[in-house]
Amino acid sequence: MKVNRSRKYVVDNLQYALNPKSIAVVGASRYNGKVGFKVIEGLLNWGYKGKIYPVNPRAEKVHGFDAYPTVQDIPHDVDLVFIAVPAHIVKSVLEDCVAKKAKIVVIATSAFKEIGRGDLQNQLTQYCRDHKLPMIGPNLVGMGSPYLHFNCGFIPYLPIEGPVAMISQSGANLLAALGTSQKDHFGMSFFVGLGNKADVDFCEFISYAGVDDNTKCLAVYIEGLDSPEAFIDACKSVNKPIVTIKVGGSKIGVKAAFAHTASENEGTTDKFYDEVFEKAGAIRATTWQEFLDVSLALGLQPPLQGDNIVMITNGGGSGLLSCDHFERCGLPLHELSEISPGLAGRIRAYMPMFGSPLNPVDISGTASPIQYKGAFHQAIRDPKVHGILGSICPTAVTDVGAVVDIVIELHEMYKHLNKPFIMECQGGEECQEAIMKLRDHGIPAYPTAEQSVNAMIALYKYGQIKKSK
Amino acid sequence: MKVNRSRKYVVDNLQYALNPKSIAVVGASRYNGKVGFKVIEGLLNWGYKGKIYPVNPRAEKVHGFDAYPTVQDIPHDVDLVFIAVPAHIVKSVLEDCVAKKAKIVVIATSAFKEIGRGDLQNQLTQYCRDHKLPMIGPNLVGMGSPYLHFNCGFIPYLPIEGPVAMISQSGANLLAALGTSQKDHFGMSFFVGLGNKADVDFCEFISYAGVDDNTKCLAVYIEGLDSPEAFIDACKSVNKPIVTIKVGGSKIGVKAAFAHTASENEGTTDKFYDEVFEKAGAIRATTWQEFLDVSLALGLQPPLQGDNIVMITNGGGSGLLSCDHFERCGLPLHELSEISPGLAGRIRAYMPMFGSPLNPVDISGTASPIQYKGAFHQAIRDPKVHGILGSICPTAVTDVGAVVDIVIELHEMYKHLNKPFIMECQGGEECQEAIMKLRDHGIPAYPTAEQSVNAMIALYKYGQIKKSK
Repeated sequence: MKVNRSRKYVVDNLQYALNPKSIAVVGASRYNGKVGFKVIEGLLNWGYKGKIYPVNPRAEKVHGFDAYPTVQDIPHDVDLVFIAVPAHIVKSVLEDCVAKKAKIVVIATSAFKEIGRGDLQNQLTQYCRDHKLPMIGPNLVGMGSPYLHFNCGFIPYLPIEGPVAMISQSGANLLAALGTSQKDHFGMSFFVGLGNKADVDFCEFISYAGVDDNTKCLAVYIEGLDSPEAFIDACKSVNKPIVTIKVGGSKIGVKAAFAHTASENEGTTDKFYDEVFEKAGAIRATTWQEFLDVSLALGLQPPLQGDNIVMITNGGGSGLLSCDHFERCGLPLHELSEISPGLAGRIRAYMPMFGSPLNPVDISGTASPIQYKGAFHQAIRDPKVHGILGSICPTAVTDVGAVVDIVIELHEMYKHLNKPFIMECQGGEECQEAIMKLRDHGIPAYPTAEQSVNAMIALYKYGQIKKSK
Repeated sequence: MKVNRSRKYVVDNLQYALNPKSIAVVGASRYNGKVGFKVIEGLLNWGYKGKIYPVNPRAEKVHGFDAYPTVQDIPHDVDLVFIAVPAHIVKSVLEDCVAKKAKIVVIATSAFKEIGRGDLQNQLTQYCRDHKLPMIGPNLVGMGSPYLHFNCGFIPYLPIEGPVAMISQSGANLLAALGTSQKDHFGMSFFVGLGNKADVDFCEFISYAGVDDNTKCLAVYIEGLDSPEAFIDACKSVNKPIVTIKVGGSKIGVKAAFAHTASENEGTTDKFYDEVFEKAGAIRATTWQEFLDVSLALGLQPPLQGDNIVMITNGGGSGLLSCDHFERCGLPLHELSEISPGLAGRIRAYMPMFGSPLNPVDISGTASPIQYKGAFHQAIRDPKVHGILGSICPTAVTDVGAVVDIVIELHEMYKHLNKPFIMECQGGEECQEAIMKLRDHGIPAYPTAEQSVNAMIALYKYGQIKKSK
């Protein structure tokens, strides 16, 4: 249901969704495979330190905890109520929550507006709003934070710690992102599935993420916006980069988005969303991969202050893929001679005769760690250079590990210059390891040329957005 | 240098580049780090069974083999001569090769046309052509085949066995592909770096791959085509899918491609190459990732005979990313009711009430392996359905391994129907393992929605190309 702007009582209470001292799980089950079982299992497995109160009228104990027939029967304060019972029972649970003065409720249950029960969903939402009880969902997977060891939902893993707040309407895509987090070291500050976002809306989690200390970048997956103006307002008030991806714009997607999260896209166009995101100062990604790649870069690196990007690679082919992609995306590389007279000559000292000091700078497949270091040094120290894109392709003599260590060292040494440093590592297992190590040290790294270019372009876009603010 | 068409003596002798009984390595070195050392090391490490003759006038033994002062001094037949000596010495080595009646030469040496020594390169090329000695290179990284345990060059790894012949002008990108092969189970039949392709040209390796039994799809990375007509002719004569990627089209890329592999792009446009590839019946990829993804699909699966694609997923969000991308690429999904009356009803039996039998079919995050099996069964057996896109998102109850086994079983069972089956597995390590297992069983699988859609669209395009032939 529409909101006009981020509501203060909602934003204030979102802390209880991510950092509750106590949780009641309604529909807590003794049977593995049930959502109400998995929620408590997840809380325990990932190290939740607060109180857990299972609610189940047919059980005395669940997971070893005393169970209660209703939320009202719990003899202690309750911050968060997680609801995983059939749709027709939810109303009475909400009444208990209001009576219990719970701080926030999360409804995981599906089968509301997305299957045609919009009236029921609206009734519940209005009830929560009347009683100033923020309600997240329904039809969602859960939320959590690696910093708080908090995994609350139907979720097999926690992400690793990092800069990106992942705010997603889709549970499946949220889970995919969490999996990627572990596998590819994509660090998150917190994550939440919004599902049908009947009450708590994007704008409120955006406002919350804007003041969350761990969050450096917001990644927002949208199936439909009920409140575009509130979204724009919230984004504008946040002084952090925001990346969006919007689905449900295709002919069949309009129906699929409704069936999935009851999102309404009838009558809105892709262009409409382009305008919303432009007004909001958000960067729109097209594909899921770009969404993740760009969010990570914006979370780890400062904005790019100009378009003097120097690319240094030991692979001419990777340089070509990159410079073509830069131009395709409207941000062509400049030759070193245009960027800074003398820079080409200074970098020349670190490459063989058949290398090429153009831009991309091809220091050739025989490049040693020392040559990489020298070339990077020259580029990063040049005051005319705004950002560095490095690339490693493993030849039979490339010492990937040593180059990675040099990049980490230089990145630390020149952090005060506020120049983005992005790496591409294209190849086998050693490159995957390099990517993860670089990410762990705050350097966005990717396995293909185009991904690293997309990341750099996003840093440029964010620089432009900041200037226009 | 230009060729008018694939030359028979060249194509006939390419077998000696990939399957030589004997190899002379000119510039064989006793010092680790040198190309001439790495070549022999690579041959030995990866199990080459033929004869190796190091050529080095200042050594008696290299890697334990008798060394010879020149190629002419080798007292046995020589199939392949691999040359890794400075550019100014190459001419005399070629004279030795002609005198020795070697079958083919490979020049790894750089510093020819790409640094302005076009005259020298042309002289060497003309000399080889005058003597009908096919010459691969110069300025290349090497070649090999996992089926032959053959790794000949400056190359840290062999790919895994599979359907794709990788023909690349760039060494770095070739190496990246080989690394990906191991890491992501991207199978190859053989690979070759063409470098400056002064003599042996794309057309000839394309003709060769066309008759190579292990090759089911050709992946061709191009920095510049000297002989577009010969390229088109060769492609048209090959009854296998061909995927291309062309770089060096950007303003700075024109210079970078020349500096890299002496490729000439001055005066050609991207549109020109679009036309070349269309005439050739080749499928053009834009990004490196798409190039790999699409090649694998075409290597593993039959062409798609129509556009009735059914997508089955346990993640509504992944379905949305997919259906939007299908429409963006000009091949929108059709609703089940349009594809086949009754299909939606039959699939309905395998999903909960809040699932959605639209298309994408969302069998919901609670989907069990049995539900997956039932839904896949119904879709694949329906005579109106041309292809299946399956998708797994790991929720807390998803049994990824069991679903993978079901897909493998169904894929085998219904192979005779010649319907493409593609999988998306989006998530963490268990999905990466699933992807590799599926690929090992002939099913193209990818970690994101858009990648799997690109793969399916390529199968459709190839179906159209075959029909128009």
